[in-house]
Amino acid sequence: MPLPLRLYELTGADDFCRFSPYCWRIRLALAHKGLPVETIAWRFHEKEAIAASGQGKVPVLVDGEQWVSDSWAIAEYLDRQYPERPSLLGDASLKATTRFINQWVADSVHPALARVILPDVHAVLDEADKDYFKRTREAAFGVSLEALAGQREASLQAFREVLKPLRSTLALQDYLAGEAPAYADHIVFGAFQWARIVSTQPLLAQDDPITAWCGRMLDAYNGLARQAPAAAER
Amino acid sequence: MPLPLRLYELTGADDFCRFSPYCWRIRLALAHKGLPVETIAWRFHEKEAIAASGQGKVPVLVDGEQWVSDSWAIAEYLDRQYPERPSLLGDASLKATTRFINQWVADSVHPALARVILPDVHAVLDEADKDYFKRTREAAFGVSLEALAGQREASLQAFREVLKPLRSTLALQDYLAGEAPAYADHIVFGAFQWARIVSTQPLLAQDDPITAWCGRMLDAYNGLARQAPAAAER
Repeated sequence: MPLPLRLYELTGADDFCRFSPYCWRIRLALAHKGLPVETIAWRFHEKEAIAASGQGKVPVLVDGEQWVSDSWAIAEYLDRQYPERPSLLGDASLKATTRFINQWVADSVHPALARVILPDVHAVLDEADKDYFKRTREAAFGVSLEALAGQREASLQAFREVLKPLRSTLALQDYLAGEAPAYADHIVFGAFQWARIVSTQPLLAQDDPITAWCGRMLDAYNGLARQAPAAAER
Repeated sequence: MPLPLRLYELTGADDFCRFSPYCWRIRLALAHKGLPVETIAWRFHEKEAIAASGQGKVPVLVDGEQWVSDSWAIAEYLDRQYPERPSLLGDASLKATTRFINQWVADSVHPALARVILPDVHAVLDEADKDYFKRTREAAFGVSLEALAGQREASLQAFREVLKPLRSTLALQDYLAGEAPAYADHIVFGAFQWARIVSTQPLLAQDDPITAWCGRMLDAYNGLARQAPAAAER
């Protein structure tokens, strides 16, 4: 086995509250490739810890002397650096359609989900991160966290509407990448793991095909994602 | 060269007004595979002409004794029947992610675009189809065509919002399928060709990356899609 990689992971006040959807993509991607990893809890105010990456956000992967940031760039790095292990992004065509799924999550799914769970995210943060988070998110969404909390039901309906193509796809096939999960699944599941870890309120109906797929993703890679304690279980 | 296939295509009052987004997927798919086709103008009331397909919608492809309906099923049929020609759906993983794009168009793009252009579609139809179309679409959308025409600006804004992940993807790569178009591009471009053929009003800004991609799709396959007269040019 190679030496373990190191991964800086966004964390709440509780060291085990690893909620970032982007970091979860990489945890699952590393498991997919069978690469051991040491995770390092990281909080928004600890910019200097990841300064060697040349920017200020996680996930940051450290592989020997190499620092890599940005979840998509990390997935590309892992396929390039470890080509003999199971592929995340596949050939050029699969990578291109997976990129569309990446953009769908960034532009449609995450904004809709954030409107539902940002108040829950704020509640789990370290005290030193709370002001920064509240200020930047309220500026980005043009609404206060308190107002978002009051609009939760309407935001949840809008989120479920955005999920329609995911729902109808998963009614037809077990995974976004087909018969087995790949990076396309890691991207989208990251959003549901984010919600699972910060929020006690269910997002989906029990008979939603997305719920069954989330169960498969929680079981995948020896139950890696299920081992992270859900908000509802804490 | 093989004997030409036959394709039943939805048509307006004018025999050259072939506007169906689903039929355009198959026209482009056949060109992608280099298969010659004879198209047959078909209108909603001509159910008996396609009865041999066992259902009542187009596209319907006739290949010798074989009748195939449903655009996705036709794309699968073409890859299965003509495997030596350029692939539409690729391997199992590419097919699975392309399926998600198919569902995104069905569940998010087409409903949003229909709210913009259904009045224009109604205007180009054969007189014998108009009542059927108005009744079924008004029931499906829960709103009259007249009311939709009055909401056009708001519907157009909502449509452009839905397109965000397409826009950000096409800012990063030339085609949804990567360096060259494949069925993922045919699926999505069908929507813009639908609008181009029935509506004179522009949907996108000139500097939108989607506009540039539409230009590439109009040029592809020896300009096949561009040869269909746009509403703005009729």
